Amino acid sequence: MTPNEFRSFGHTLIDWIADYRAGIRDRRVWSDSQPNAILVQLPSTAPLDPDSPQALMHDLERLILPNISNWQHPMFYGYFPANSGLEAVLGDLVSSGLGQLGLNWAASPALTELEERMLEWIQAISSIPSQMKGVIQDTASTATMVALISARERSTDYALARGGLQGEAQAQMIYFSSQCHSSVEKGGLLAGFGKDNLRIVPVDKNFDLIPSELERMIQGDIALGKKPCAIVATVGGTTTTACDPLPEIAGLAKEYGLWLHVDAAMAGSAMILPEKQNLFAGLEGADSLCLNPHKWLGATFDCSLYYVADPEHLVRVMSTNPSYLQTSTDGQVKQYRDWGIPLGRRMRALKLWFLLRLEGVTKLQARLRRDLENAAWLEQEIKSTHNWQVLNPVRLQTLCIRHEPNGLEGADLDKHTLAWVNQINASGNAYLTPAILDGRWMVRVSIGALETTLEDVQCLWALMQEAVGL
Amino acid sequence: MTPNEFRSFGHTLIDWIADYRAGIRDRRVWSDSQPNAILVQLPSTAPLDPDSPQALMHDLERLILPNISNWQHPMFYGYFPANSGLEAVLGDLVSSGLGQLGLNWAASPALTELEERMLEWIQAISSIPSQMKGVIQDTASTATMVALISARERSTDYALARGGLQGEAQAQMIYFSSQCHSSVEKGGLLAGFGKDNLRIVPVDKNFDLIPSELERMIQGDIALGKKPCAIVATVGGTTTTACDPLPEIAGLAKEYGLWLHVDAAMAGSAMILPEKQNLFAGLEGADSLCLNPHKWLGATFDCSLYYVADPEHLVRVMSTNPSYLQTSTDGQVKQYRDWGIPLGRRMRALKLWFLLRLEGVTKLQARLRRDLENAAWLEQEIKSTHNWQVLNPVRLQTLCIRHEPNGLEGADLDKHTLAWVNQINASGNAYLTPAILDGRWMVRVSIGALETTLEDVQCLWALMQEAVGL
Repeated sequence: MTPNEFRSFGHTLIDWIADYRAGIRDRRVWSDSQPNAILVQLPSTAPLDPDSPQALMHDLERLILPNISNWQHPMFYGYFPANSGLEAVLGDLVSSGLGQLGLNWAASPALTELEERMLEWIQAISSIPSQMKGVIQDTASTATMVALISARERSTDYALARGGLQGEAQAQMIYFSSQCHSSVEKGGLLAGFGKDNLRIVPVDKNFDLIPSELERMIQGDIALGKKPCAIVATVGGTTTTACDPLPEIAGLAKEYGLWLHVDAAMAGSAMILPEKQNLFAGLEGADSLCLNPHKWLGATFDCSLYYVADPEHLVRVMSTNPSYLQTSTDGQVKQYRDWGIPLGRRMRALKLWFLLRLEGVTKLQARLRRDLENAAWLEQEIKSTHNWQVLNPVRLQTLCIRHEPNGLEGADLDKHTLAWVNQINASGNAYLTPAILDGRWMVRVSIGALETTLEDVQCLWALMQEAVGL
Repeated sequence: MTPNEFRSFGHTLIDWIADYRAGIRDRRVWSDSQPNAILVQLPSTAPLDPDSPQALMHDLERLILPNISNWQHPMFYGYFPANSGLEAVLGDLVSSGLGQLGLNWAASPALTELEERMLEWIQAISSIPSQMKGVIQDTASTATMVALISARERSTDYALARGGLQGEAQAQMIYFSSQCHSSVEKGGLLAGFGKDNLRIVPVDKNFDLIPSELERMIQGDIALGKKPCAIVATVGGTTTTACDPLPEIAGLAKEYGLWLHVDAAMAGSAMILPEKQNLFAGLEGADSLCLNPHKWLGATFDCSLYYVADPEHLVRVMSTNPSYLQTSTDGQVKQYRDWGIPLGRRMRALKLWFLLRLEGVTKLQARLRRDLENAAWLEQEIKSTHNWQVLNPVRLQTLCIRHEPNGLEGADLDKHTLAWVNQINASGNAYLTPAILDGRWMVRVSIGALETTLEDVQCLWALMQEAVGL
């Protein structure tokens, strides 16, 4: 494709995306596609000769658009906001267009230094402790695994340089609450710890980790000859927005010499609001922190930020420096290849740069506050309506709710819950995620898509009341 | 940013990228930026109020463009081609624009099924054994680590469900040659094996792993009570295009029960050429394979393909299935979250779809053949010129070369080599990567940027001859 062909088709696609976003309200929210419906319509082999842009446009309309779930829809209340701000979309376009590959600093000085600065921008507006240094990772799953590997290596005094985890006499132990994201267990297992060495710490009525239980478990393991290695604390857990008490946990981490990783993947966006920074008090005692601007903030997946208190340790664990990666400026500059698993890297900082500059901090803060107010409004409505329950403290923009008609409980209540939420989801008018809490189904309402207004939330509330009445 | 503001700025950026690509020959290839030159020009804090698109364009011109290395330049002969085809750039734009997040099949049916089909397209045109199933990963580094973790879990009968690697009595061992990519050692260390348990197998004069040495090491470890776990074989190694003998290695893997991972990150693009598929003979004995269409093929970083012979094993190692990720179609469809480390995923298959449809297989093959012919031409020139040496068998498009004036050897030869290559790189007229081979500096010429013609390679040869004459 020549630059001029790119120009022509590029303009068409920019308009197509603009039209898609402008008209998204007319689409259903959650896909009603049947399994394999797209697959059977795609040819089984690649074309030998070029297709035309027109043919591709036709298939985008015919095959792709009817078979996606519209995460950018204002009536999307599922999982968490996965906002792809149009500013960030353009920043990412520039990244692909420039075709940079940041193998090392010299391979793209602007890539490295823009990344460094964007991490400082987010750090400053989010009041992340100033001694921490950051790097962009793809997702929180990866960041958590990197944190657990870093913890493993600190706790074993760099066993990777010797016999690895298999050479250690003492079992290394990890601690986290039942409200932690599934990626914590996954990261621990992939990092080689083994399920027997993962401890699930009980939570209180707010779904927050109980520090005294954590300490009891740590002491128990020490008594058994095991070695407590890491704690993963959550601020704003996926299911219930659980906020583990960081100051107490950090105290225990320090006392017993454990690594403290703080997973604020979703809630971390709220750190740009001074009035919410109290949720993150105690962060100065953390060894690592993850937050995902590709969620609520709008930086377009994938853009997960990972901050560490001791970057030298991270580099020591992650570095690799064969001769063909050496450049004459080593030492004077950051080599982000040594800050994570992949060697290559995209210029992902462009997404953040475009978002932060074209929106500005004040507008981003205003949008998040709008969502918090809408969540507070819905919480008030639900709490003041007969038979409806809010099951979690609404610390941010996620509500865990249930409609509990008189006398309904157990499996019958589960059936009722799934019936009304599935009816809404199947209608295409809104999307909510059902989830299990304390063994019973409930429904999560996560407010914060880019275009969600108070009127949209009011509309959702009407849909919910209508659904339970049927 | 409204859809109409996006439309306007989007058109501007499409034109800007088209102009950048059309005019790239007028730019220097490798950056001559000084450390921190960009950093100091970026404000230390994010703006509170929105900046204009014009201000951003100004900074793209002023700060970014002069401070990047131009990987898409036709005179780029460094590392490996990291081609960002303009078709793929547009496919990636659509991915960001749609803002899909493939947490599970239902979250974006088209994302999952297009990915499945694109993996089948590549598999078919590349003659990858038909029983293998694929998934898109970010980079080969990640794919290699996933392979080593999978090997670990097969070898230990799923130790992750028990005490993990630290609960195993026998040390698990990994084998690979000195010509393997640095990510293999890194992946092994991060996966917990420990440096003492990584075995470097000697290579022959072609830089290929020697199977008899491999077997000797395996037997030696068994005699010591250790457990051989995995072999990583390379087809088309980064430094020298080493091609380990897969049939013999696969035979040993089968005989001793080891996992065989084949790293064809760079060379895998050549599998679309029937006449090069002999390099991959023996692949049917592999447990896993990685190839990177984001390199020579042009699919825009990041797009690394990972194929496995036993997808059920992969899912068993990588899966996590908490309630909020369950959907009613589980079992009928692929859940790619269980095929790798990250939970979320972009719609990366769009890049492949756009590239393969807008180019067609025949044109892609023709471009790769052009590069092979250009490499053969340069090889012939160098070999027939006094004092010039080609140090590797040129199996694809990478030459390892040295200019060895009479009598020059040792440190003096290194000095000469670095002098002439650094002079070319500093001139901005071309970029070549110096690397160490058998303890001495040499220069890699990797041919295959999208726009590199025979005339460009002739120009490079003239620059090289001129540089050594000075």
